[in-house]
Amino acid sequence: MISDTKKKMICIGLLGFGNVGKGVEAILRENVERISKRLQETTGEEAYIVIKKILVKDQKKHQNVPKKLLADDFDEILNDQTIDIVVELLGGDEPATEYMIRSMQAKKHVVTANKLAIAAADGELEYEAQKNKVLFLFEAAVGGAIPIIRTINESLEGNSILELSGIINGTTNYILSSMTREGTDYEEALKTAQALGFAEANPTSDVEGYDSVYKMCILCKQCFGEYPKPENILREGITEITKEQLDFAKQNHAVVKLIARAFVKDGEPHVLVEPMEVPEELPLANVDGAGNAIQISCDNAGVIFLQGQGAGSRPTASAVVSDIVNIAREVLFAKQREQIKAQKAL
Amino acid sequence: MISDTKKKMICIGLLGFGNVGKGVEAILRENVERISKRLQETTGEEAYIVIKKILVKDQKKHQNVPKKLLADDFDEILNDQTIDIVVELLGGDEPATEYMIRSMQAKKHVVTANKLAIAAADGELEYEAQKNKVLFLFEAAVGGAIPIIRTINESLEGNSILELSGIINGTTNYILSSMTREGTDYEEALKTAQALGFAEANPTSDVEGYDSVYKMCILCKQCFGEYPKPENILREGITEITKEQLDFAKQNHAVVKLIARAFVKDGEPHVLVEPMEVPEELPLANVDGAGNAIQISCDNAGVIFLQGQGAGSRPTASAVVSDIVNIAREVLFAKQREQIKAQKAL
Repeated sequence: MISDTKKKMICIGLLGFGNVGKGVEAILRENVERISKRLQETTGEEAYIVIKKILVKDQKKHQNVPKKLLADDFDEILNDQTIDIVVELLGGDEPATEYMIRSMQAKKHVVTANKLAIAAADGELEYEAQKNKVLFLFEAAVGGAIPIIRTINESLEGNSILELSGIINGTTNYILSSMTREGTDYEEALKTAQALGFAEANPTSDVEGYDSVYKMCILCKQCFGEYPKPENILREGITEITKEQLDFAKQNHAVVKLIARAFVKDGEPHVLVEPMEVPEELPLANVDGAGNAIQISCDNAGVIFLQGQGAGSRPTASAVVSDIVNIAREVLFAKQREQIKAQKAL
Repeated sequence: MISDTKKKMICIGLLGFGNVGKGVEAILRENVERISKRLQETTGEEAYIVIKKILVKDQKKHQNVPKKLLADDFDEILNDQTIDIVVELLGGDEPATEYMIRSMQAKKHVVTANKLAIAAADGELEYEAQKNKVLFLFEAAVGGAIPIIRTINESLEGNSILELSGIINGTTNYILSSMTREGTDYEEALKTAQALGFAEANPTSDVEGYDSVYKMCILCKQCFGEYPKPENILREGITEITKEQLDFAKQNHAVVKLIARAFVKDGEPHVLVEPMEVPEELPLANVDGAGNAIQISCDNAGVIFLQGQGAGSRPTASAVVSDIVNIAREVLFAKQREQIKAQKAL
């Protein structure tokens, strides 16, 4: 580990400044010393992570952000040679996907929370990252603050994953939880969820199970090596669930949950998203409100169960920041390698 | 990423060949191609992880292991320049600690599952690792297959950890679970646990809470930056728990669990291990048998709950293997750096 008296800056370009973007900015700002200390402990380098530019649609809406930080043209970020990491928080597939690919081609590492873009790109984003020798991390795309991607990729390397099942959509779990608890019907529970900010004005992607489908595409790639086609995933939403079905489940000592499930049968991964009766004694039955939880069954590690906040500004931003810090560490190692090269060339 | 047609070997020296050691050997052997593929995906290098030597007390007891793999003198492993990683699975503090330190001084990375040695060394092992610029990983030392160390260190970097609580000893949880379920008393439940291999012949370390204390020392270091002195941890075991106490808890809709807990108050970490009544609706109440679970409360990520198999040959070995693979990745990166240096020197 090479030391340098000059403190290094690792610069971020943020695409989008909504709830999650604001959370990322706040967490990085509030924890600047802590993160810097951790980087030094692990790499031996004194370095700081700073946000260099934030791409926003309308600068007027962000009067409280220093003007020099704001950009209204993606090229300002793309062409800024000091920016090491692009953090994509625009949502939707375009222009998010295009911006991520162009960032990678410009040799910038990319972090995203955008499950739709990753699932729709069907491996193209990973391919571009590998081709351009940059890192591409997306812990926040599935399960909010739950460290599910990192657990699959770094903690279960000596395992075959046999089955994955979980609650990976907070909106539907909130609605089903209140229907169960309050005895309300679907329409009423949806309205309450919308009023409280747990469901969007147009809730289709969540309540019809599409959001869970995108997330399962990503999890399946990590667990089984390839993306299933979203249209090949058996999908059923929660809009047809009735009070009677919930009562019936209760009589069976079960609760209805929107379960996302993947398993390998005859060498092929099978994936489905559908409402299921979960026996009360199982951990998934006890995941309430907007919570998320995922259960991974492995041949050696056994069953691992992870639960946490699946959405929200701070929990999602916390996962984004963990990816940023992990990339920062690699950036510092790469700079050490370059330094060694440069010293040798003298 | 530099490619090389010659396949690299990353060589392991295993200290001890008990249950966990046998699990590590089996997992590495059964997953050799999968692990090699993952290493290539992440580093661009073709490499294999192989066990080069296994230190055992009595070679005659291991007739089914190829003789050239066995060593009865630690120096055989220490002096083998091809061994990159020493995996310490002897248990106890000495000679385990001495062997780990000498391995680090010989610039070998170290993986261990030995909570007692880590806690007793009070930071010396991390200090030696840092001084000798080697990696020191110990995911298996707490919570078996549960990725608790990696989650704290890599997924919560933008968080202050406010509180940690959990069930981190499988033996006591097994005994308390059977007392609760079967209505047996402590002595009877202990005997059954011993007969089934869930408790040792001398169960003191588990049932008096010492095992949980060592594990809490390690978790506190990760969460709050320093090791508490084991003797400063408030500790109470489960040997005095009566059937009546469990019945009383049940009437309160609670179950008695041996809870390990740490939190920061007035800037100081407080740590305790004691039997507590856990309300039935909390996830920790539902951790049954030899299971482990840990709940981490953070300022940004919220509450994260991790559950899994806290002991056993394969689950523990799975965590050891994840550490080995993570070090292998770093070894390959380091070799790339050296290669760059060597090329420049030509």
